[in-house]
Amino acid sequence: MKFPLSDSCGLGPALRVIGGRWKSVLIWELHEGPVRFGELRRRAPGISEKVLMQQLRELEADGVVSRHVVREKPLWVEYELTPAGQKLNDAVHTLALWGQEHAPSHARTG
Amino acid sequence: MKFPLSDSCGLGPALRVIGGRWKSVLIWELHEGPVRFGELRRRAPGISEKVLMQQLRELEADGVVSRHVVREKPLWVEYELTPAGQKLNDAVHTLALWGQEHAPSHARTG
Repeated sequence: MKFPLSDSCGLGPALRVIGGRWKSVLIWELHEGPVRFGELRRRAPGISEKVLMQQLRELEADGVVSRHVVREKPLWVEYELTPAGQKLNDAVHTLALWGQEHAPSHARTG
Repeated sequence: MKFPLSDSCGLGPALRVIGGRWKSVLIWELHEGPVRFGELRRRAPGISEKVLMQQLRELEADGVVSRHVVREKPLWVEYELTPAGQKLNDAVHTLALWGQEHAPSHARTG
């Protein structure tokens, strides 16, 4: 799905940040607060540890997610939406609600 | 850009409705009121008449746009966002604003 013309208006860049199979799911799973890596993996059935790590690293680099290492025994890591990430989730959620309510049947199957 | 997992949440279907190079631009150009076919073409530099007609037909079939034939001499046709189309534009616009404000530089070039 190409959105080149929309680069100047920001839609293309926004969709590249959430593009791919998992990012919109991970952003949604984080929208209610910090979640540990293991729990995130349970909430995204089918994602491998390697892919989850890579997707989170990309979201972190894009300023959508922040990573916190908690120095307990054993040490664990949790992820959280940044303020920008929360805004992105709100925008994506609004579009997803539109899709649920209005998208025609032919658009509902990938 | 694939969003299969998001089909159940509506994001995938919504993005399929606005997918492609032109639809988000046409929806934006219609968001302030009805626009004639010829004017729409002027506002989407680079689009051919044939492609514009096809994109509008798809948007009409998807319930996003309505088409009105005005019986004057000469007869002309204008397009308008439906209420669902207006909601879609609002959701897409919010995402585009996020992209303008927050998307990292690497996501800004297609």
